[in-house]
Amino acid sequence: MDMWLYTDNSKMSIPVSRQLYSAESEYQKIAVFESPQYGRLLTLDGDILFSAADEFIYNEMVVHVPMSVHPCVKNVLIIGGGDGGVARELIAYPEVENIDVVEPDEVFIEACREFFPDITKAFDDPRVNIIERDGLRFLRGKSGEYDLIINDSTDPFGHTEGLFTKEFYGSCYRALKDDGIMVYQHGSPFFDEDETAFRAMHRKAYSTFPVSRVYQAHIPTCPSGYWMFGFASKKYHPINDFDPGKWNARGIKTWYYTTNLHLGAFMLPKYVEDLLIEAEKNEIKAVFR
Amino acid sequence: MDMWLYTDNSKMSIPVSRQLYSAESEYQKIAVFESPQYGRLLTLDGDILFSAADEFIYNEMVVHVPMSVHPCVKNVLIIGGGDGGVARELIAYPEVENIDVVEPDEVFIEACREFFPDITKAFDDPRVNIIERDGLRFLRGKSGEYDLIINDSTDPFGHTEGLFTKEFYGSCYRALKDDGIMVYQHGSPFFDEDETAFRAMHRKAYSTFPVSRVYQAHIPTCPSGYWMFGFASKKYHPINDFDPGKWNARGIKTWYYTTNLHLGAFMLPKYVEDLLIEAEKNEIKAVFR
Repeated sequence: MDMWLYTDNSKMSIPVSRQLYSAESEYQKIAVFESPQYGRLLTLDGDILFSAADEFIYNEMVVHVPMSVHPCVKNVLIIGGGDGGVARELIAYPEVENIDVVEPDEVFIEACREFFPDITKAFDDPRVNIIERDGLRFLRGKSGEYDLIINDSTDPFGHTEGLFTKEFYGSCYRALKDDGIMVYQHGSPFFDEDETAFRAMHRKAYSTFPVSRVYQAHIPTCPSGYWMFGFASKKYHPINDFDPGKWNARGIKTWYYTTNLHLGAFMLPKYVEDLLIEAEKNEIKAVFR
Repeated sequence: MDMWLYTDNSKMSIPVSRQLYSAESEYQKIAVFESPQYGRLLTLDGDILFSAADEFIYNEMVVHVPMSVHPCVKNVLIIGGGDGGVARELIAYPEVENIDVVEPDEVFIEACREFFPDITKAFDDPRVNIIERDGLRFLRGKSGEYDLIINDSTDPFGHTEGLFTKEFYGSCYRALKDDGIMVYQHGSPFFDEDETAFRAMHRKAYSTFPVSRVYQAHIPTCPSGYWMFGFASKKYHPINDFDPGKWNARGIKTWYYTTNLHLGAFMLPKYVEDLLIEAEKNEIKAVFR
């Protein structure tokens, strides 16, 4: 049995030994497969969302990068995050007092609870609140509440499309405290057909936040194996305000993130730097408002 | 028409519009295809060797990393390199006086000349000598001749197997001058089945050269999209002896390499660092001999 993934032009095939689950929620088709090489993997509308073998890379990179920069994160909002992976990394930090997981799809959450209990176990932490609502609607009316917002939603198409608009970045800006940080998925820059979305995403963050930088990770089940994240911030710079000594003293166990890798993740290939610089042209840089 | 690539457990499928060439040399089956997403791509025994869309990443990374560390490279040996990509990056350096390309497969060279003329054009540079011989045999008897050796051979199986043995690293060590550098392909560390080869390769370099470090790049057509290189050296350290100012003043045009990326390429994920540290255990570190 072979599954096909990714773009129209280039696909990845992962042999799966069996299908464990299939359901159609109000939002999407959800399926869980067992695969020899990646372990269990979950698909949404036929695209891989994550696999047991490489979810650690994504989840560590969206959490430990901002957490080693911001001096004291107490209140966190995860938009999406129904699989629990982002929350799992966050509960390692004792100073975090509250984690709101705003995930509209309860069928998705239940599937993850059943087939990925090691990941969803973070939901048992009393600091985690699961809120079954649409992220964009939840954000409206929020102002100056969060230290950190992580946009863990899937991609700029379908029901999560609203989470990639200019309005969305503005709502996140308002929902953050004066020194808040937002981290979001920036997509893959390699293929020509992804370039436009990549540029547009950077333009929105660049014109909304005073600090906006892009960082990278190698994630095998992502298109081309190369994935980017956005770091948008009202105050802290991901390198200048980075405190590796403090983070290392915490003794948090990771498999991908190190404080060395943190620095390297912001050192981008020339063709990616060029895309970002091009996106910044004709945009008015955000300043403190 | 679909092509299948990579490991037994996980494949990548690249639709190709047509096959342009096919031949069987003394060493391997060579084929050239046209693909909508990667442009022309060349396969050896059914595995992708390079594509027009991403060859720049590999070729820039094996050349500009050592060239920005060594103070003055005059004499270079490329083992393999019959496609001309490594030589193309090297001829940008005026101080380079001689480039020996030791490639046994003349059919491969001719195929590259015909279908990748933009890459093989480096062979027209008078400093480049193509030597149609086996790399390991060529190396025997060489002593203290080269400033830089780049092992551009394909993989540790088949006719290039001898280029991944302990003897081979010893031969390279002898063929280098007292401050020589060797760069080699280190494979992909992500999949479990590649881990053993990855560890073994590091052990050989670590016990042969005083300085041995590993660096990374994202190459979409490599297994898992993540590829490693070895930097083995008699004297210079890839970070401590790195001279970004000098390299930037050269004004060499690149699409992947920057002096920032150079630093980041040595900042590895935790699971890769752990593999390397494990490989170093029980090995006696090489010292100057």
